[in-house]
Amino acid sequence: MEGLLTRCRALPALATCSHQLSQYAPQRFHHCAPRRGKRLMLSRMFQPQKLREDQVLSLEGRSGDLTCKSQRLMLQMGLIHPASPGCYHLLPYTVRAMEKLVRVIDQEMQTIGGQKVNMPSLSPAELWRATKRWDSMGRELLRLRDRHGKEYCLGPTHEEAITALVASQKTLSYKQLPFLLYQVTRKFRDEPRPRFGLLRGREFYMKDMYTFDSSPEAAQLTYSLVCDAYSSLFNRLGLRCIKVQADVGSIGGMVSHEFQLPVDVGEDRLVVCPSCHFSANMETLDSSRTNCPACQGPLTETKGIEVGHTFYLGTKYSSIFNAQFINVHGKPSLAEMGCYGLGVTRILAAAIEVLSTEDCVRWPGLLAPYQVCLIPPKKGSKEEAAAELAGHLYNHITEVVPQLQGEVLLDDRTHLTIGNRLKDANKLGYPFVIIAAKRALDDPAHFEVWCQNTGEVVFLTREGVLELLSQVQVV
Amino acid sequence: MEGLLTRCRALPALATCSHQLSQYAPQRFHHCAPRRGKRLMLSRMFQPQKLREDQVLSLEGRSGDLTCKSQRLMLQMGLIHPASPGCYHLLPYTVRAMEKLVRVIDQEMQTIGGQKVNMPSLSPAELWRATKRWDSMGRELLRLRDRHGKEYCLGPTHEEAITALVASQKTLSYKQLPFLLYQVTRKFRDEPRPRFGLLRGREFYMKDMYTFDSSPEAAQLTYSLVCDAYSSLFNRLGLRCIKVQADVGSIGGMVSHEFQLPVDVGEDRLVVCPSCHFSANMETLDSSRTNCPACQGPLTETKGIEVGHTFYLGTKYSSIFNAQFINVHGKPSLAEMGCYGLGVTRILAAAIEVLSTEDCVRWPGLLAPYQVCLIPPKKGSKEEAAAELAGHLYNHITEVVPQLQGEVLLDDRTHLTIGNRLKDANKLGYPFVIIAAKRALDDPAHFEVWCQNTGEVVFLTREGVLELLSQVQVV
Repeated sequence: MEGLLTRCRALPALATCSHQLSQYAPQRFHHCAPRRGKRLMLSRMFQPQKLREDQVLSLEGRSGDLTCKSQRLMLQMGLIHPASPGCYHLLPYTVRAMEKLVRVIDQEMQTIGGQKVNMPSLSPAELWRATKRWDSMGRELLRLRDRHGKEYCLGPTHEEAITALVASQKTLSYKQLPFLLYQVTRKFRDEPRPRFGLLRGREFYMKDMYTFDSSPEAAQLTYSLVCDAYSSLFNRLGLRCIKVQADVGSIGGMVSHEFQLPVDVGEDRLVVCPSCHFSANMETLDSSRTNCPACQGPLTETKGIEVGHTFYLGTKYSSIFNAQFINVHGKPSLAEMGCYGLGVTRILAAAIEVLSTEDCVRWPGLLAPYQVCLIPPKKGSKEEAAAELAGHLYNHITEVVPQLQGEVLLDDRTHLTIGNRLKDANKLGYPFVIIAAKRALDDPAHFEVWCQNTGEVVFLTREGVLELLSQVQVV
Repeated sequence: MEGLLTRCRALPALATCSHQLSQYAPQRFHHCAPRRGKRLMLSRMFQPQKLREDQVLSLEGRSGDLTCKSQRLMLQMGLIHPASPGCYHLLPYTVRAMEKLVRVIDQEMQTIGGQKVNMPSLSPAELWRATKRWDSMGRELLRLRDRHGKEYCLGPTHEEAITALVASQKTLSYKQLPFLLYQVTRKFRDEPRPRFGLLRGREFYMKDMYTFDSSPEAAQLTYSLVCDAYSSLFNRLGLRCIKVQADVGSIGGMVSHEFQLPVDVGEDRLVVCPSCHFSANMETLDSSRTNCPACQGPLTETKGIEVGHTFYLGTKYSSIFNAQFINVHGKPSLAEMGCYGLGVTRILAAAIEVLSTEDCVRWPGLLAPYQVCLIPPKKGSKEEAAAELAGHLYNHITEVVPQLQGEVLLDDRTHLTIGNRLKDANKLGYPFVIIAAKRALDDPAHFEVWCQNTGEVVFLTREGVLELLSQVQVV
């Protein structure tokens, strides 16, 4: 350490040491926010809207395939736009919602010790040949060759890649385990029949986590930990989710569960036992079975959208790639693995499917693209004088409630009536719509506040608005 | 509006309206942070480290190709790991740095009105045939067919996709323009010779922005606005960048500039005029020219890494896809476009290339994966009693300086001497390394603080440490 110390130039004053820091003011709250004083204007949003159903159908180009509410609503409201079958452009509102979802996922994964990595989409064929999935995955894999003729697929999942990566670490000790490595990246799957918009696409965002443990017992603990984190995630989103026993499919392994959102449009058929906690994907049960395997009671059938899937893999992949660690006895030992997926874009669409009405998008509160839409009076109307108050309120909200910076949208289309703009706001599902109308000219001014997720309306003073909004959770 | 109002159930109490909000405490600061009381332990990091140069060479499998400092350092320090030629796994430290860089980019782009979208990687061949780039891009395009034989490339850039998307909006008005649409996504380019690690890969992250204006004059203003945002970005990162006139290449258009980081390993040859502001990529000049085209003075030559590229495209793409808006006279008119790229992963590597020593990684302060590394004394050493103080300091920092939650790493490898751990910390380039050694047992306790970006060392009390760290910028 003496040697290192002599490399430092001198004992400087604290001021010298910190001068490099002061160039910019803290901006942690600002990363989605416009510069102070600048307002987010609805009229400037890139968001093709108000499409009729037939226009939406022609967008997709395959009229039979517009088969669910979330797909129709997301197309009509300008949240997504088709690029090619099963591939969508995510438009600004959706990107904001997705980034919030990713932040919630990051919180939950990092709370249990998850470390985020990022693996390439181009996945060399030799990895997939090693596990025999190059053949067994068949036409679901999108395959290509580079200019040198080398074969790749576009990763639909990354068991091969992550296991080879961990196997390349030759000096792993049991003391370092468990590793919980995850990423949030685009995945590719050449679905035979992509449908339901973001619910079953060919290119989609997934959170995939891979865990490495030093024993089957430790791996089981990790498995429970991740399942609990998934439950916590769906709780925070306000989505009722059922964890069901599931088939291991092409991933393999010994134990598997799916996290299912019960909804009619779901493609999975589930059974739930009302008397005990048993629940399963029907594909895991003998098709003739009608009673619960656990308590013999009658089973209830429902449909679900699979939004998460967990697998205890054992050494299926670690044995192929030789992913080892040095165990407590100083001997090399194969890592016990698990893998855990969350459909990121699918959760967004599924939440909209579950929460929305036929005409109006509703979001989990945490994920709403913008928390507040502020509607000033129509130009030339009796209430026009309230426009200035609306502007002041905008400034007050973003000053007094710092977490709402970047979250308040001003509907400046003042050539439209308040009613028409309120209709739009209702369709887009901002959790709070604030209207400056007649009662804004009272003394003190009162604003009409629509709490869209509860359908309730209150008239509040400026202080009341600020108090209400200061309780809003923003991720 | 009357109709809408009757749909609301009643005038509820404020409490009812907000009860849905209070389930979780605000977590805005927490999204990279562990749960309160949990500490980030260095021993648990997934980070293959301390590789010798020959080990790094064998990782890459092509010994001649380890050609620059950033590539070697990033491999040796466990920041990246090769997956296939030109494709890298980004390991946890790099993902953290990249996410910070993306937040800074988001701030700068959103400050000038940028709206974030997300377009698929699978890009249909017909779009590229329309612009003739399906042929002209040659073997740089990675191409594939889906199960139905339909052809795609993996998008190396998205002029075609975004122009077709904007063209699909049939009711655009000049009042809505400009649109500044951008994304941060993976791009693919089948480089003939990928090299220099993240500096020239085949799969990499890029920020690409596309702008749509109502007139050439407005487009020029937008062009300046984006260039200024780029300058602001590099300023904030503390990276000296030269904006040079550039060739339009395969993108096309009329005006183009590159943002170049001057460094010897750079692949671009630049000329700069010391007497006037002229600067250019040499490929834009007549090869026989040695004097400045602007002031006729002598030109200085340097090498640079291209980290940004801007193009004024005019109507090159909007005319092909018919991206129109209704102009002030009520007539359809072609949008004037620009496109603007930033190499996200490349900026990270270029910053490391420019700032690091031969042995030690240095980061732009804002992008350092962790701001603080805290080193408690060695187990069994004379100073061991200071270990508890280090633990308390960890808690104090994360409590008193909320922006550092998730930014403080405890080097718990207490079987190693402080000196050895300090060496590692020096190599990884945490901006602040805090050591609890002998003087931590003084009354009051003093901690040794290394400010790595200035090379300075100070001894500070707990309050001094907190004061210093409270000035740290975190994005």
